[in-house]
This record gives sequence, structure tokens and C-alpha cells, in this order.
Amino acid sequence: MRLIESLATTEPLAELFSDESILRAMLTFETALARAEARVGVIPHAAAEAIESSAAAADFNMPELARDTFRAGTPGIPLVKALTERVRSMNEEAARFVHWGATSQDVADTALILLLRQAQHVLELDHTRLGNALAKMSREHRGTVMLGRTLLQAAPPITLGLKAAGWLAAVRRCWTRLSRAFSETLILQFGGASGTLAALGNKGTEISRALAEELGLAYPDAPWHTHRDRLANFVAACGVLTGSLAKMARDIALLMQSEVGEAAEAGGDGRGSSSTMPHKQNPIACSLTLAAAHQMPGLVASFLSAMIQEHERGVGGWQSEWPTVVAVVQGSGLALSSMAEAAEGLTIDESRMRANIASTRGNIFAERVMMLLGLTLGRDVAYGILEQASQKSMAEKRGLFEILAEMPEITAILSPETLREMDRPEDYLGSANEFRKRLTSPEED
Amino acid sequence: MRLIESLATTEPLAELFSDESILRAMLTFETALARAEARVGVIPHAAAEAIESSAAAADFNMPELARDTFRAGTPGIPLVKALTERVRSMNEEAARFVHWGATSQDVADTALILLLRQAQHVLELDHTRLGNALAKMSREHRGTVMLGRTLLQAAPPITLGLKAAGWLAAVRRCWTRLSRAFSETLILQFGGASGTLAALGNKGTEISRALAEELGLAYPDAPWHTHRDRLANFVAACGVLTGSLAKMARDIALLMQSEVGEAAEAGGDGRGSSSTMPHKQNPIACSLTLAAAHQMPGLVASFLSAMIQEHERGVGGWQSEWPTVVAVVQGSGLALSSMAEAAEGLTIDESRMRANIASTRGNIFAERVMMLLGLTLGRDVAYGILEQASQKSMAEKRGLFEILAEMPEITAILSPETLREMDRPEDYLGSANEFRKRLTSPEED
Amino acid sequence: MRLIESLATTEPLAELFSDESILRAMLTFETALARAEARVGVIPHAAAEAIESSAAAADFNMPELARDTFRAGTPGIPLVKALTERVRSMNEEAARFVHWGATSQDVADTALILLLRQAQHVLELDHTRLGNALAKMSREHRGTVMLGRTLLQAAPPITLGLKAAGWLAAVRRCWTRLSRAFSETLILQFGGASGTLAALGNKGTEISRALAEELGLAYPDAPWHTHRDRLANFVAACGVLTGSLAKMARDIALLMQSEVGEAAEAGGDGRGSSSTMPHKQNPIACSLTLAAAHQMPGLVASFLSAMIQEHERGVGGWQSEWPTVVAVVQGSGLALSSMAEAAEGLTIDESRMRANIASTRGNIFAERVMMLLGLTLGRDVAYGILEQASQKSMAEKRGLFEILAEMPEITAILSPETLREMDRPEDYLGSANEFRKRLTSPEED
Amino acid sequence: MRLIESLATTEPLAELFSDESILRAMLTFETALARAEARVGVIPHAAAEAIESSAAAADFNMPELARDTFRAGTPGIPLVKALTERVRSMNEEAARFVHWGATSQDVADTALILLLRQAQHVLELDHTRLGNALAKMSREHRGTVMLGRTLLQAAPPITLGLKAAGWLAAVRRCWTRLSRAFSETLILQFGGASGTLAALGNKGTEISRALAEELGLAYPDAPWHTHRDRLANFVAACGVLTGSLAKMARDIALLMQSEVGEAAEAGGDGRGSSSTMPHKQNPIACSLTLAAAHQMPGLVASFLSAMIQEHERGVGGWQSEWPTVVAVVQGSGLALSSMAEAAEGLTIDESRMRANIASTRGNIFAERVMMLLGLTLGRDVAYGILEQASQKSMAEKRGLFEILAEMPEITAILSPETLREMDRPEDYLGSANEFRKRLTSPEED
Repeated sequence: MRLIESLATTEPLAELFSDESILRAMLTFETALARAEARVGVIPHAAAEAIESSAAAADFNMPELARDTFRAGTPGIPLVKALTERVRSMNEEAARFVHWGATSQDVADTALILLLRQAQHVLELDHTRLGNALAKMSREHRGTVMLGRTLLQAAPPITLGLKAAGWLAAVRRCWTRLSRAFSETLILQFGGASGTLAALGNKGTEISRALAEELGLAYPDAPWHTHRDRLANFVAACGVLTGSLAKMARDIALLMQSEVGEAAEAGGDGRGSSSTMPHKQNPIACSLTLAAAHQMPGLVASFLSAMIQEHERGVGGWQSEWPTVVAVVQGSGLALSSMAEAAEGLTIDESRMRANIASTRGNIFAERVMMLLGLTLGRDVAYGILEQASQKSMAEKRGLFEILAEMPEITAILSPETLREMDRPEDYLGSANEFRKRLTSPEED
Repeated sequence: MRLIESLATTEPLAELFSDESILRAMLTFETALARAEARVGVIPHAAAEAIESSAAAADFNMPELARDTFRAGTPGIPLVKALTERVRSMNEEAARFVHWGATSQDVADTALILLLRQAQHVLELDHTRLGNALAKMSREHRGTVMLGRTLLQAAPPITLGLKAAGWLAAVRRCWTRLSRAFSETLILQFGGASGTLAALGNKGTEISRALAEELGLAYPDAPWHTHRDRLANFVAACGVLTGSLAKMARDIALLMQSEVGEAAEAGGDGRGSSSTMPHKQNPIACSLTLAAAHQMPGLVASFLSAMIQEHERGVGGWQSEWPTVVAVVQGSGLALSSMAEAAEGLTIDESRMRANIASTRGNIFAERVMMLLGLTLGRDVAYGILEQASQKSMAEKRGLFEILAEMPEITAILSPETLREMDRPEDYLGSANEFRKRLTSPEED
Repeated sequence: MRLIESLATTEPLAELFSDESILRAMLTFETALARAEARVGVIPHAAAEAIESSAAAADFNMPELARDTFRAGTPGIPLVKALTERVRSMNEEAARFVHWGATSQDVADTALILLLRQAQHVLELDHTRLGNALAKMSREHRGTVMLGRTLLQAAPPITLGLKAAGWLAAVRRCWTRLSRAFSETLILQFGGASGTLAALGNKGTEISRALAEELGLAYPDAPWHTHRDRLANFVAACGVLTGSLAKMARDIALLMQSEVGEAAEAGGDGRGSSSTMPHKQNPIACSLTLAAAHQMPGLVASFLSAMIQEHERGVGGWQSEWPTVVAVVQGSGLALSSMAEAAEGLTIDESRMRANIASTRGNIFAERVMMLLGLTLGRDVAYGILEQASQKSMAEKRGLFEILAEMPEITAILSPETLREMDRPEDYLGSANEFRKRLTSPEED
Repeated sequence: MRLIESLATTEPLAELFSDESILRAMLTFETALARAEARVGVIPHAAAEAIESSAAAADFNMPELARDTFRAGTPGIPLVKALTERVRSMNEEAARFVHWGATSQDVADTALILLLRQAQHVLELDHTRLGNALAKMSREHRGTVMLGRTLLQAAPPITLGLKAAGWLAAVRRCWTRLSRAFSETLILQFGGASGTLAALGNKGTEISRALAEELGLAYPDAPWHTHRDRLANFVAACGVLTGSLAKMARDIALLMQSEVGEAAEAGGDGRGSSSTMPHKQNPIACSLTLAAAHQMPGLVASFLSAMIQEHERGVGGWQSEWPTVVAVVQGSGLALSSMAEAAEGLTIDESRMRANIASTRGNIFAERVMMLLGLTLGRDVAYGILEQASQKSMAEKRGLFEILAEMPEITAILSPETLREMDRPEDYLGSANEFRKRLTSPEED
């Protein structure tokens, strides 16, 4: 992990896109290609073996490879050149068959796909952690009442169980879409110069199939050099997932405010302290998730605007993709892992939740009274009465129900007993628990 | 259609988001809600009927409604107020039950969903037209050879059939994703103030189900006031589709260049002429598609960054969604309809395609010779020889094969007969037709 | 104002981009062009007069104009056609000289510029209101202490005066940049077909100068049909301004939280109430500002990606600009006007500000003690001691200074008197007032 | 340069944001802070010296620093910790005064500013190269005629001199804006915990001034922890510059098309060849510029949406900035350097330019004839006649003037001699050279 990316990735995802890892993925393609072509009988088996063992040696000069990539405008050209030299020094004959029939975008794209396959495993671990933690939180706090908050104002109560279930269900839906996007995307790229595999005569599809098999990738209908919709959909799915994670992060950061104090990240191992303020416990996992989410929409936009790739190989569109895809994967992974950490370690302060409800002086139940009155007076007349009572309650810093008990237009309809029992949050949760169950099942008991 | 949007939408999609159409959708919600609540026995049947007939009258003051929406920050509040007044003037009693138990976002969101359902039908028609036209083009031009072009440079040949098949398959994949996104998105929004339907006591889910039924929408696990991933995924799917359509539009615009001249939009009905240049046939359908595609990535980004909606109702995120969703739907529809028009009317000039191949003086077959030589000399040695011959061919403006026939290192390996037959484009198409079939099936004979 | 845009614009800015207003701007161009050409002697004066009076009649069929714009891919072509017909019906001779030497983009671009000039006046009014209100707030609350908040956690105190000064200075800087961008952008577009004014022979620049004069616009070096950097810079300046306004809006919305309660929007005229919750005062001006800010980055991105306009007239880039520019101007205007309303009407609760400071139990002064101890013990040792004391204070819900007074390592260095006086917020404001003055001068007394 | 960034940066800009370079910038801040505080008399001179020499040693464990940054959510905390340990091992006393009164964002932000100052020098070199090359091209090709092209269709002629002047003037305007943005941005960040420098008592501004002086940075009105408009404006200015460079790149790539052949990048040192197609000369500098331009709008959007930073220190907004700023600087630098390379080495084929004009068969002069006829017949009647003649010319593949000479309605007005001379491109350039001069002056002779 480099300093510049240290707030934008996790360590395993930094590793995944290191020079060594990318090189390995490109060599995996070249090796598998040689093997596939040998199987089909297009190049000698000995050549394939020589290519494979040269690739394994892997004493490539990485800074030179990067510099030559910059000059060539693609990593494929310098890679093939470097590999061919290595093979030649070992086996003159075999050197003839390196990269046989492929184009530089074939190796670059397939290498990216191989790296994305690894990324899926990394993301999956954190997704599972997060799902488990949220399912547990939702179950355990099914009865924990807290303020609903709309436009950041106090609203009728909900349960933490419902809130957690909402986060969980959104993340799961996003994950399902992302998994589908991964499946669509984990395919071979192999088309040769113009995407017809013309250089391979009539063996193109046979070799393609063998190559896909070697790599364990699906074999698509055709090469997709300038049709990037699958990757675009994948990138967008990462963006949507991160958006949902960031909603959760924003919620938690708001709950962690000093004045709210209903939740706290666990901290530990350097997390959450301040360089100048010894008293602080900062929402770092939330910050990093939100930081990822601030970058994601722009990155998705970058990928989408690069989709307009000309004819059989684009000028600029393709060349812009790698940094975008990498940042998107790393950002999603950072958000997933941060929210997993937050969900697993979250401290909940139920008493603050109750205290915050209490401090609204019953006003969040104004709707409840309004509905009851509304049956007799009509919704809008009732609304007017309650609005007035609420304003009085806030101006005089007295409880709403105390005010209401003094209003004859209220007491004419609602008995003191009825009024007295209307501000219990547990009694005004409507379908909260049904919704919670629907959102979390099948985990649910 | 207003002037300001006349390059950004089609007429039916302009209509769809007119004041009247939005109002109708919101009233549909309020009416269906009353009906559902009457069915469940929560409000009187007479009230539901009065609400329904008041809504039908629909003599709403639209400019006032817009202005009050601006003040209230949501269309729900002024709509309910205006509807309640209408109902009251008809039936004092019924006025009590307007919008019973709902919140303003319930009506706004569900109205949007109802409009999206209509949009799906509009888009579908153009998608079908486009698909049919491309399938036909791909079939009819399966043998029409043309230059492959990579980085805008001439490359080994392809067929127009393959090119059209590539466009078609991409559009179809995008449509499949968009259809899935529509299905996920066409759901009821109904949660009341905090998303618990607390105001409806224990009848919340029963009424929800009835309401979803009335509207013909699916009933989701729970309200989704601040969980916008489904809509985000829908918006992103529109973005990806438009990206693929824009790739097609860019390709066609490039083929229409005066210097290329291989294709032309049909024009007609005001399309394609210039105010100052009587000789022109401009690629207007392509322009509009590309114009939509320039806006789409930013719009998708807008939606994604608005996903971070706080707690039970967001401050600003939700309020930003409508213009974005509308622009996305209209832009996608414009791109689909424009490309349908382009594909249906496209004039193809096969002789220019052949002439453009010929004008490369055989150089696009350099790879072919290289592969053949490579079997003997190795790929990289062959590459060097061909590079040199190509440069000579271009410098001297002579055919590549003429040059090659003079090079002893070539003639030692390849006979004059072999060389003579290597520049027929039909013979160097590799798997083009197999790919074309795979991309277009099952339409394909 | 249409319903769909009612959360995305103000009324005057909705008007500004109405069909009638755009038409008027385009006719202003055609009229001024005729006048300029008559002055230079290129067309007859009588023709110019006939064109002017036909344009004034203005009984254009707007829906037809919009539809024909859609077909033509530009409003210029149908406008010129419609105007020519009107002129001909009045003066056959004059009809020859409509749009003489101009291209359709000349009229469309210059019309946009004329509208932007009007927009500047609209925005300026709200900018002035906002500036005045913030300067007043900053001055009046120069001594009003409140919590600093970092990562949403309580931090050492600041003053509301400093906070308001920060908002003010940022908005002013943004306005200065925007004003500069307006100046750069308010220029004539006039280049004819290829941007050389070839159709006007050697009179091109003379007519251009006269035309710029007629319109009161600056005359640029040359036509800028495909060089859109000035507009891009303008759009970006709107984006940056809106970002700064949204920072202010987010701050206010956070201060308005029920649990914080330090500020409130004034509400009134339909603002801030809820359809279901009679007790609420919602931050609507903040919501609308944040809504604009969620759309702005994407819109800026749209404009930037449309800058890549081909050769002398682009395919798609230019055609995408209008909706983006309009949305950007309307969004910025909405944000400015909303924050002006918020700043003018903001209610401040100083006692809640003090109470929120008090509720941190002195912990926000931990840094202060640390610095004092640090002189003796070193910054990092002091940090450790204070961190421990803070944790104890929070765990035991006792004041930090009570805890500190019990710690021998503290009392060995700091006297009880010193400790007792360290938690007065007024005494720990550092350079707050100097910064405030620097930020707000020259308004400042 | 790492592989992943090798198509997204130049080597010097890769270096600039390496771990070592960032560390050096942060240590420069800490050292200068100590020096400034010693000068003002707040910390001992000996402490400042010890801090300076410890910082110089610079044997920091970079991977650990990156990892701790990830945990802390900011590089400031682990840096200060690591530096303090180093100082302590040298001078126990001095360790007390490391980072005295500063907050972690102070060091991180100022370090970024110091790096941006270096970036300015890097960019400036390439800007100068590009400006010189374009000025030369514009001067030398002031008389080189070529097709104008609108919507990628042939249009009346321009000169290459005018085209180059248009690129040049746009780049210069963008550079002027960027330079202004640099000036505004190269300022000190120093505010302490809440931005009041409270920990420094009444010495805050004095130390700030001294610190700014030490670093050679301007001293702003106040700390700007959550007011990011200056950086946003800088990022946007990079985006606009890159957009203008990409317009130039797209133009060149289009001119380099095999079918157009009017220009070619120089190639060399690995540039422009293909892995499979020995005959190719690819537009790599253009590709890289366009690649940068595809990423830039999204990056600008990311920065803008991160501007909404809460109160005195944001949750997520700030944490997202570094990767965005770095990518923006690197992308702009890549585009500048690539276009400098392209402009310096561009090969122009004037004969192809003439041939491409000729191949339009005179149709690009249709406007010219129309204007002449228009004086007699009116613009729109003339338009109709020319449209018909053009269509005939294209259908029959005969010259427009040949057709016109056969049309009695033409020959009645225009003499054979007049007609014969109307298709010389040199005679139909209008104000092209005047515009060229205005755009390029004062370079111009």
C-alpha cells in the first residue's frame, strides 16, 4: 500500500493491483494461450512448455515495463517483447510462438478479468462479515426503540432492528447485482487484431474455447474489444453498492455525534483518535466509507464516458479504463471492509436512544394524536390543532401531552387515559417488526 | 416538448413528464390508497369514492402547485392540500381521509414509479425496432467486407455483418439488464412518516398489499424511503445502454465522414441539412445519441452521489432525484429512438468499403504474411521484416505485395502464387461469421 | 415553473429559459445581425428594418419550432426558416437577407450568451442578499461561542461569528471567480459555416464588430464554435459556488437537528412543515441547496466531457450543452437564493450552544490542558494522560476537570486555580476573532 | 511509475506523488513549523534544530506509515508519532515540541500544497513546449488550406494555421486560468484542532505568518479546513485544460485516419506501433490525452461532491481528496506532455489536404455560390437550387460547377468565368488569417 492510496484501499486490494500481480496475470494469459494452442495443434508442445517456464522465471524489469507501456500506449506490446526475449534465450524455436495470433488488448483485458476474479473473493469475505454482523444486530435489537429521523428532525420512533435490517437488505440486493455483474464479466478476451482471429485461420473458436478452459473463464459469444457494457455494468454495480454502504456510514456517523451519542465505532489499533484532541473517538470506518463514496460516482461516470470506443479498437477510451476499474474495486472493498468493521464493533447506547426520544417532549407522537383526532375532525383540521400544540410545547419547553390535556378541543374527544398512554414508543411502531422480518429473512428465526 | 429539451428527449417522453402526466400519477396513488383503505375497512367506502371522483375532476392550478412544491420542498404536501380542498367542497366527511396514513414521499415516489412503468413501454418499442433493423443488417451484410479499424487506423478486414452483430448483441445485453432493473424498480412506496406505517396501527402491511394490487405494482419487503439502490441500478442501466448506443453512433458518424463515405443516415423530415451548406447530409441521429451519451455519465453520477440519504428521510439527496431520473429516461429514449431510425434507414456503400480496403495497398494484410513467415522465422523476426516492407510501401505508394515480391527473404519462403492470393479480404476473415452468428442467434437462420 | 423542475430552480430562472425567452434571444441575434450588416452596407437598410419588425411580431408556433429543432438537431435551422417566411410575407426583398452569412450555431450560441447575461443579474441579487446577511451574522455573533465540531465530534470552541465569516468568505471567493467567468463568457459567437466568415468576403470582422456592439457583447479573438473552454470554466465556477453553498447548507441542517437545536430556518409561506408530522420544522432551504449540489458535480462532468468537439463543429458535444448549462445556472441560482433566505431568517439559540458545550463535561478542553502539560512533560506524554482522563470522564459521566483534579500527575504541575479556569470557552478561542475579521473585511468595523 | 498508472501519468508526476516525496513534504511542514515557533519564541531553538535534523534522517518505515495512515484515517497522526519517536531518541526535551499547536490536517494539507507547487513547474515546461510548437505550426501553415469539417462532413476550407491557432489560444486561456488557480491555492494551511489556533494562545497569527514565510507560501485570511473552493477551482481548471487538449487530440487522431491521412504523430521510442499489425502508426499521444480526458470530468465531479465538508472537519469529504487531486494533476500533465510531443513532431501532408478538398468535387463551395445567387434570388431560394445541384453532383459523381454550368437559372446570373473561379480554396477563406493573427498574437510577426 502506498501512502497516496492509504485512504482509498485495503491492503489486500492494494496488493492485488501491484506490478507483480498484474504481471503475473498477463503471464498467465500468455502461458495459457500457448498451452491452448499446443492442445489444438497450432504450435508445438515444446514451445508451450518453454513459454510457460520462461514466464515462471519472472525476473522482469518492472520500471522498464511501466515506462515502455507508457510509450506503447498498452502493456501488451512491451510484455510480449520482454517475454519473447526471455523465451528466446532459452529456446530459439519457441520464441516464434509467443502471443501467437493474439493482440495486445487480448492480454491486457484478460489479465484484468483474472484480477477481478481474485477481487471477488476478497470482497466476498467482507460482505459475509458485514451481512452476519447486521443480521445479528437486527435480531438483537428488534425491540430497541430509537428516534426515527426525517430531514434530520425527530420523527415517530423506529427500532434499531429495523434500521439495521434496512442496511442489510440494501447491501444484499447490491451484492446480488454485483455477483451477477461479476459472472457476466469474468469472460475471456481473445480476438486478435480486428476481433476476427483471422491470424488463426479457421481455428479461432477452437483455440478460444481451449484458452477459456485453461483460464477457467467463460467463453463469450465473441471478442468484446470495443463493447465494454459488461465492465460498465460491473463498475456501476460497485458504485451502487458503495452508495448503499455510504448511506449506512452516514447514518452511523450521525448517530455517533456528541449530541446524539447513540452509537460508537469500536476503534482500536490506531482507529479513531485525534492528533490534537485526546478526548475524541472519531468515526474513521465511516469516514473511509464516505470517502470511497465521494469518489465512486465520478469513477462510474469516467467509465461510462469511456464506453464510446471507436470501431474495432478505441482511441483513448480503452486506455483510460484500468485506473478507473482499479479505483472502483478498491473503493468498494474499502467501504465493505470498513462497514464490516463498524457493524461488528458497534457499541449501542440504548439509554441515549430513550433519552433522545424523551427529549422531544412527546412531539414525535403528534402524528399519532392527529390520526386519532382525524377520524372525528378530519386529517387537516387535526393537523392544524396539533401543529399549534407542538409549537406551544416547544416554545414553553413543556411536554406535548401536558399541553394537549389542557386543550378542550382535544379533551372533548380523547380521554385523559388515552392521552396518557400515547407517548410510549413501543406502542407506536406500526409494522416495524414485520418489515424487519421481511427484510432480513431467511436469516430470521 | 419545450425548446430547451428539444435535443434531449423524444416527444412521447417529453409528454410523459409533463405537469399533467405527473399530476395524474400522483392522483392515481391517492385514489388507489383510498380504495385500498376502504377495502381493508380503515376508511369509509363513500370517502374513497368521493376522493376518486374529486381526483378525476383534475382542474388543478398547475403553476400554483409547482410554486407550492418549491416552497414545501416536496410535491406531496401541496398536492394533498389541493386534493383535500377539492374533496371537502364535495364531501366534508370524505375530506378527513385523504392521504390517510401516508407521507408525502409515498405519493411522490410511487408516482415516479408509475411513470417509469409507462416509460418502459415507450422504450420497448424503439428497442424492438432497433433490434430488428440490426438483425436484418447483420444478416444481409454477412458477406460485406470492410476495413477493420483500430485506433482509427486501417486494420485487417471484418464484415459489416459482424459489426452490426456486435452493436446488436451489446444493445440486447443492455436491454436485458435494463428490463431486470425495471422489474426490481416497479414497486410500491408506502411507509408513512418514519417508514413503519405506525399511523395505521397493525393494518399497515394489509393496506400496503391492497394498495400495491390496486396499482399493479409489486409489494417490496419494506418501504425504501432512503434506500435508493434499486433506482440507482435502474439509472445506471440506462447509462450503460446509452453508452453502447453511443458507441454505435460514433461508429456510424465515423463511417459517414466525407473521406470514408461507407454509410449515411437516411435524413428526411428536416434531418441532416445545414443552414448554410446546401451540400451536406449531417449525422443528426448520431449527434443526438452522442449528445445523450455526453450527459448520461454525469447524470448517473448525480444519482449515485444522492444515494447517501440520512436516516429515515434524506436532506437533499431525495430532493435531487426527479430531474436526474427524468433526464436519464429521456436521454436513453432519445438514443434508442435515434439509433432505431439510423439503423432502419442506413444507406450502405459497399463499393466505398472495397475502395477503402484497396487504398491501403495491401498493408492491412501485413499481419497475415507475418503469421505465415512467423512459422518459419519466428513471430518477432517476421514482424520486423513486415514493418520494413510496410514502411516502404507507404513511402513509395506501391502495393505491399509488390514490395514483398521483391524481397528475397520473403520469396525464399513464400511462393509468388501464395503472395498473390493473400490480399483478398474474403479470405482473411477468420471466425468473423461464427462470431456474427453467436452474437445474433437465435434470430439467425 | 414546471412541476418536474420545481425543486431544481427558482421562478425567475425558470422563466429565463422558457420557450418565449429563448426565442426572443435568438430573434435578438437575427435582428442585430441584420442591423449590423446594414450599417456596414452589406444588406439594404430596408431589409434590416423588415427583419426587425417581423421578429417583433413573434407569433411563432413554439411546439412546431421545438419539433423541428429535434429533427434538425439545432434550433437555428427552423428558426431561420420560420423567420424568413414571416419576413417574406411582409417584404419579399428583405427575406433574401435573413441570417446573412451566419450559421445556425452562431444564433444558438449567441442566444445562450444573451440569456446568461440576464442570469447574471438574477444571481447577483441573491448573492448580495446572502453576503449582507452573513456579514451581519458574523458581526453580531462575534462573541457567540459554540462547539467546534470535527468529524462530527465535539472539539474546542469557536464562535458563530467565525463560522459565518468562513461561509461568507468562501461564497465571496466563488462569486469573484464566477464574475470573472461571466466576463470571459459574455462574448459574441459569429463565424459562419467553417468559422472563417468566408461568405462575407473581407467584411467578416467589420460586421462582427458591429454585431457585437449591437448586442452589447465583447468581441472575441475569433469564433469559438468548438472551443468551449470559456463556457466550461463558467459551468465549473457555478459548480464550485454551489459546493461552497452546500457546505453552508449541510452545516445549518446539522445545527438544526433536534438533538443539536442551535439554529433554525425561518420557515413561513409553506416552508418546512411536514405532511404527516405537525411538530416539524424542516430545513427546506438547506434541502434544496443540497439537492442542487448533488446534481452539480455530474452536470459539470457532463459539460467537460462534451468539450471534445470535432474539428469545426462537433458531433454530439455541442448538441448536449444546453440542458447542462441551464440546469447549472438554475441549480446555482436555487442554492444562492435558498441560502440567502436561510441566512436572512436564521434563528440562533445561544443557550443551546452553551448547553451543548457544557454537555461535553469539559472534555473539549483536553487539548488545552495537554498543551500546558506538554511544556513540561512533552506533547505525547501529556496526550496519553489526557486520553486516559477523558475516557474516565466519559465512562463515569463526570467532568474532565473533576477527574484531573484527582490525578497527582496533573496537580503536581497545574494548580487547582489554573485547572478551575480552563474550561471557559471564551478564554480558549485563540485567533478566532482575528480570523473572523480577516475573512469579513472590509465590511468590518 | 507503476504499471497500473503507466497510461495515466508522466514519469516526473509519478515521482512527485511517491511515498518519499509525500513524506518529504510533510516533514518540511513539521520542520518549518518548529523553526517558525522557535523564531516567535514559543518553543526552544534547540528543539527546532533537533526536529529538523531528525526529519532529515528520514529512515521512516513507509509501508508501516501507510498502514497506520489507513488505520488513523489521516497521515498526520502516524507521521507525528514516528517523527516524535525519532526526535526523542535524539533529544528527549525536543520531542515535547513536535507538531506544537498543529492538527493532523494542517500537515496533510500543507504537504499537498507544497507538492502542487512542484507540479506547477513540471506542467509549465510542457505548456511552454506546446505553446511554442503550436505558434510555429500556425505561422508556418498560415497559407496551408484544408477542409473545414462540421459534424465530420466536408465544409468550406480553412487553413491549418487557423486550426493550430485555435488550439493554441484555447490552451493559453486554460493555462492562464490554471495559473490563477495555482496562485490562489498555494497557501498555508494552519489552524489547529478547531481552526482557531487556540492551543497557541494569542500567538496564532504571528506563528502562522512566520510559518508561511518559512515555506514560501502565501498566508490566507484564515485556515480553510472545510472550505475547499480554492482546491476545487484548481481541480476544475485542470479539467478544463484537459478538455481543450483533448479537443486537439481528437482533431489530430481524426486527421491521422487512414482515409484522411493529413497528419501523423512522429512516433519513435516505442510509440505508435502495434503488437500484431506491422503496418500501423497509431496515435498514441492522442490516445493518452483522450484517456486522461475521459477520466477528468469524473474526477472533477468527485472533488466537487466532496466539498460538502461538515463544520470544522469533514467526515469523508476531506479523506477522499488526495487520490482525486493526484489523478487530476497527473492526467493534466500527461495530456500537456502528450500534446507537446504531438505538436512538436507532427507530420503534415499538404498534398492529402488538397486532395481531400478536391474529392468533394466543389461541393464545399455550394455556400459560396448560394450567397452570390442569394443577392438576387434571396438566401432561401438560392439554398434550394444549390441543394438540388449538390445532390446531382454527388449522385452522378460529377463536379458541382460542371452541374451548375448546365443550369439555366444559374447561368442567367453567374457568368461562366465567375463560376470557373469559385472553387479555389485560397479565395474562400474569409477572415481566416485575421482570426489566426488575433488568436496567436503577440507571437505573430
